[in-house]
Amino acid sequence: MARFEGALARASARHGRVPATQAEVISRVCQCARFDIAALAREGRAGTLAIPFVKALTAQVAAASADAARHVHAGATSQDVIDSAAALCLKAACARVDELAVRLGDAAAALARRHAQTPTAARTLLQPALPVPFGWKAAMWLSPLCRSLFALRRAAGEACVVQFGGPSGTLSAFGGEAEKISAALGEELDLPASLVPWHSARDGFARLGAELAILAGVAGKIGRDVALLMQPEIGEAAEAPAPGRGGSSSMPHKRNPALSMLALEAAQRAPGLAATLLGQLTPEHERGLGQWQSQWFTLRELVCSTASGVAAMADALDGLEVNDHAMRRNLESFLKGQPLEAAGAASAMIDQALAGWASARESAASRPQ
Amino acid sequence: MARFEGALARASARHGRVPATQAEVISRVCQCARFDIAALAREGRAGTLAIPFVKALTAQVAAASADAARHVHAGATSQDVIDSAAALCLKAACARVDELAVRLGDAAAALARRHAQTPTAARTLLQPALPVPFGWKAAMWLSPLCRSLFALRRAAGEACVVQFGGPSGTLSAFGGEAEKISAALGEELDLPASLVPWHSARDGFARLGAELAILAGVAGKIGRDVALLMQPEIGEAAEAPAPGRGGSSSMPHKRNPALSMLALEAAQRAPGLAATLLGQLTPEHERGLGQWQSQWFTLRELVCSTASGVAAMADALDGLEVNDHAMRRNLESFLKGQPLEAAGAASAMIDQALAGWASARESAASRPQ
Amino acid sequence: MARFEGALARASARHGRVPATQAEVISRVCQCARFDIAALAREGRAGTLAIPFVKALTAQVAAASADAARHVHAGATSQDVIDSAAALCLKAACARVDELAVRLGDAAAALARRHAQTPTAARTLLQPALPVPFGWKAAMWLSPLCRSLFALRRAAGEACVVQFGGPSGTLSAFGGEAEKISAALGEELDLPASLVPWHSARDGFARLGAELAILAGVAGKIGRDVALLMQPEIGEAAEAPAPGRGGSSSMPHKRNPALSMLALEAAQRAPGLAATLLGQLTPEHERGLGQWQSQWFTLRELVCSTASGVAAMADALDGLEVNDHAMRRNLESFLKGQPLEAAGAASAMIDQALAGWASARESAASRPQ
Amino acid sequence: MARFEGALARASARHGRVPATQAEVISRVCQCARFDIAALAREGRAGTLAIPFVKALTAQVAAASADAARHVHAGATSQDVIDSAAALCLKAACARVDELAVRLGDAAAALARRHAQTPTAARTLLQPALPVPFGWKAAMWLSPLCRSLFALRRAAGEACVVQFGGPSGTLSAFGGEAEKISAALGEELDLPASLVPWHSARDGFARLGAELAILAGVAGKIGRDVALLMQPEIGEAAEAPAPGRGGSSSMPHKRNPALSMLALEAAQRAPGLAATLLGQLTPEHERGLGQWQSQWFTLRELVCSTASGVAAMADALDGLEVNDHAMRRNLESFLKGQPLEAAGAASAMIDQALAGWASARESAASRPQ
Repeated sequence: MARFEGALARASARHGRVPATQAEVISRVCQCARFDIAALAREGRAGTLAIPFVKALTAQVAAASADAARHVHAGATSQDVIDSAAALCLKAACARVDELAVRLGDAAAALARRHAQTPTAARTLLQPALPVPFGWKAAMWLSPLCRSLFALRRAAGEACVVQFGGPSGTLSAFGGEAEKISAALGEELDLPASLVPWHSARDGFARLGAELAILAGVAGKIGRDVALLMQPEIGEAAEAPAPGRGGSSSMPHKRNPALSMLALEAAQRAPGLAATLLGQLTPEHERGLGQWQSQWFTLRELVCSTASGVAAMADALDGLEVNDHAMRRNLESFLKGQPLEAAGAASAMIDQALAGWASARESAASRPQ
Repeated sequence: MARFEGALARASARHGRVPATQAEVISRVCQCARFDIAALAREGRAGTLAIPFVKALTAQVAAASADAARHVHAGATSQDVIDSAAALCLKAACARVDELAVRLGDAAAALARRHAQTPTAARTLLQPALPVPFGWKAAMWLSPLCRSLFALRRAAGEACVVQFGGPSGTLSAFGGEAEKISAALGEELDLPASLVPWHSARDGFARLGAELAILAGVAGKIGRDVALLMQPEIGEAAEAPAPGRGGSSSMPHKRNPALSMLALEAAQRAPGLAATLLGQLTPEHERGLGQWQSQWFTLRELVCSTASGVAAMADALDGLEVNDHAMRRNLESFLKGQPLEAAGAASAMIDQALAGWASARESAASRPQ
Repeated sequence: MARFEGALARASARHGRVPATQAEVISRVCQCARFDIAALAREGRAGTLAIPFVKALTAQVAAASADAARHVHAGATSQDVIDSAAALCLKAACARVDELAVRLGDAAAALARRHAQTPTAARTLLQPALPVPFGWKAAMWLSPLCRSLFALRRAAGEACVVQFGGPSGTLSAFGGEAEKISAALGEELDLPASLVPWHSARDGFARLGAELAILAGVAGKIGRDVALLMQPEIGEAAEAPAPGRGGSSSMPHKRNPALSMLALEAAQRAPGLAATLLGQLTPEHERGLGQWQSQWFTLRELVCSTASGVAAMADALDGLEVNDHAMRRNLESFLKGQPLEAAGAASAMIDQALAGWASARESAASRPQ
Repeated sequence: MARFEGALARASARHGRVPATQAEVISRVCQCARFDIAALAREGRAGTLAIPFVKALTAQVAAASADAARHVHAGATSQDVIDSAAALCLKAACARVDELAVRLGDAAAALARRHAQTPTAARTLLQPALPVPFGWKAAMWLSPLCRSLFALRRAAGEACVVQFGGPSGTLSAFGGEAEKISAALGEELDLPASLVPWHSARDGFARLGAELAILAGVAGKIGRDVALLMQPEIGEAAEAPAPGRGGSSSMPHKRNPALSMLALEAAQRAPGLAATLLGQLTPEHERGLGQWQSQWFTLRELVCSTASGVAAMADALDGLEVNDHAMRRNLESFLKGQPLEAAGAASAMIDQALAGWASARESAASRPQ
């Protein structure tokens, strides 16, 4: 929030709406301002966190320069600072989720390559079906992850934009400079600017929420399969042991699918959170009652859930113990003499999924920083 | 479902897996096959609708040619026909939603242009704030609709693809012809083919579901505003009267916001349905328990809700009665002598939203048919 | 809906608001009235289904008596007939769900008794833990079902009540007879009457929706376990084979957990539907925009989902094949010589669950008819 | 969590499973134990928070007595301590929500009494309808609150029970003392004991979640109406001004419905959270992957949302400014000479709602402590 106010002062100064020296004071104070978080939270209940925040910031600026203090938050509205701050936090959070998703995809791709010829049973409705390569199974994990990575980057890029409209949304305080200051604010924050504000258009956050839930689901699906394969009666794959991981407080010998659990946990928590955002698309008029005031609660839970699930499965696949003997033994017991090798297009499918992943990864390099 | 089986026979024949004359029989029967829907539904409860369907279709083909009957559904699995049929239905349904969204956007764009200079009160937290042009308000409706139209087309294009993998997903029955038959099947169905099946990757349906919910929300937001403006104490806009519309069974003189109600109804129903799809991303192994078997129920409800809401608001905006006198009167009573004209960047924002709409509409022309 | 209008005429006649002979005409027409459903649906889009319905009904009454026609729907409002009709349908639907839940509980109780001494492995996080009796596992299925049955009956009893308030909710057309006619209407419909209307208080439907989702989840939990036990690598229990059930269109030898799939399908679909109702608790003023107009869509999907899942698991447990040899073999392989018998309070827990079930069943007998 | 472990030691000592002096040491350490929360959270990611917690607690006990340390957590499992701790927290949280709901109901009841003769317009679909007393409107707010208070108490009483089953759920470590220790543990924790554990039966939390969401909705409905009445064009009621409340960072003269916003915010956030719990009813076997490990996150968000919304509306109704002149003026402008007095059963309905509230409040006195 302080970053927003500092950037606003600098952007306004660049176009003559705030004297340069005063903007400098505001900007400097914003960089080192400290807040009594509990007090802000308490006072924020009276309406919006922005009001006590701006008051506290203004007091700190006033301690440096009474003249500068008059320009704090000038022309902006509470929602501008709340939404822009959420966008700044989300941009960083999504970049982290992106890194984790790349790690997960790389690990799945490595399994797809390494086990392109390792026969295992496909299982449909939890019943063994025909043989497939275990690498093909990993490629099937990878394929939706390619789509998710593309879509998450797009959704994050579209959702993490400056909110800037002022009291009624038209930037009425900025006269002819409105467009230029809006653009300058984006530059100062290193965040895309949108001349058209999105005070009552919450589709960007809803779409990002859905993509985070989808990615949590993609990781959860891998967790589902790993946990099922790790049943000792099947025993075809296992999360690698690590100190303290997967233990039981009552049965220390047990080896639990602790990472898969984290991914399944996230996949169960994300849809309801995403649904909250999908249900908040109809605010009243130019600023609604109850959407922007709390969507950052929901987005925080959602992005943390997704990150947790994706990180867990990246770790799980990185260290996955694949028991090709158990795969072969189980297959033979079902197939009773039929060939173990997968017929059909398994190899071409693996190649296509790997090519898709290379392309999804590449899209990372070109994404806006 | 019959279209899928007919196309599969033709695609298989094109690459030598089914004799051409027998494929022709299957294809011809599929075009005119009739089914006892109630019986299929009853028998489908034993597992999947595909089994009694294939049985019934095979019987009809057998009546024409016992040899042809042996090739019905050959190499495919139940989920191939269920999912592909859902994709075919959704493709048509999304094209219809697209048309309705274009109508809605055109109506909003017309209002944005027509009322670019009509002063009205912005309202934040249901309290009047500064003046804005009513056309700017319409432009704010339009802006998220641009994003929704782009995103819906993309999501529909990615979700409405052939499902084709056979029993275990590797097209094991088709040997070296698998890739070619997969591509030919897409051509025969006029639906994008994906060599990699998506039996357990339900992200496409989840993403489409989220976009449908977002579009329902975008329409619902317009409905929210129209219903609020239509309160007689405000009286700034009204849905046009139509025979039988907006009446009351007990108070015939009332004029209810019946179209806005439809949009709000859809916006309330869609998020839970979309959440169902977001919660079904973790099927077990190569074919899960309870996802693909019923997602078409959920998608049907969702696409119908969205279509209903968008159609209603297209009608509402097409005929919207704008009372600029009431807008001026209300504004004057709040502003007490301040200027009515919106300062700031309202005009530039309207222009940008209209340009965005022109570009979103245009993207229609280039979308895959 | 016709039942409501007939009952309203009779109740009004009992307290002198409609002449007895005319009420009789209305009542008689209501019993055999036929409607063009498609036309009603089409016209209902203009606001509410009640308007074309009342028009069509009035026309049919008028054909019998023009005088009687003037009294059709007299004093009521659209929402009265829509909500009361939904309550009538739900009452019957919940009675059916109740029967199915009793069948499911009886089947689980029988397993709990029959297998009170059959050792099997408890499994935590999908890993085998200590031995428990299989009957104890069935008792753990039964225990939440007891609570669900109680709670469903209570929720259905509270949700399935007459809606009757007239245009503004105060029964303004009925003067001093309002209370008596309200009570009489309940008697005529064999549905509890509530003097206080619930036009804008949708908590009853939301609570019932939550209970239906919980019951679907309770059945889904049993389906989860049965499907896992039915994995051939574990092979400890199986749904009984039945003609056409659990087959595969591509691999006829497979034996799928088709009933468990139905239960899991319902358990996945119900929460989003229940969430829709939980999200519709804030209608505007005395009659809202978009809640009552469509909640019967959502409730219909929900009650059908729950009935489907519960019925499936009642069938599954009725015919469950329990393989105590496999249970013993698996246990021995994990326990490596430790005793197979469950220590602790397993027997007392089974007894308590069975006693709880007896009491829950009994509550059926005393439930309001 | 420490309270659970202390109580377990005391309960075990009461029935001879832990020496009294050692139980005393454990109990004493548990009362003053301090934990490095960040370290626990970090280590907890390896599976469950209970493992590092028990380790840290055991170390603190060992510092007092190595013999006592051997008895920490004896016979219990991770889920026992996690779920029981959640139940303890929820019990206190629900008691607080209960107090707030009583305050809200008392405030609504006072309005119902005070304005039993104040005419105002009923509004249906946001259009004015016939006159009703404003006190009747308050009674309509009260009526679902009565049901919510009853149902919340029941759901909290049923959900907030001890979890105690040990590794596999049968209390296998406690032999013949299992039942007695289970009961003693409940006494020590002042929490109902359930001999039958609910490790995989999450219905109690789901039902409580639904009730919390319903109560949030009941408060949100009041907030919806107050915010609408507070529109200056209507101006029939207003939240009382308070220092810092309802202000705007850009337009200090505005008076926003800040409390109603909090209630609407909570009502929008609660359904998705409740849906998460409804979607977690199907854990695998005796201990699932991803439900109990995180439900306390969801319940914490939910109970805080509900408390926030209910507290806000209790404040709002306590200080509600009712403008009966504006109500009369608006009514007259709609009714054009018709009588302002509500006909019908409004008074009887108010009386019934007030009687219902008295009875709901009373149920407080008798609820289990």
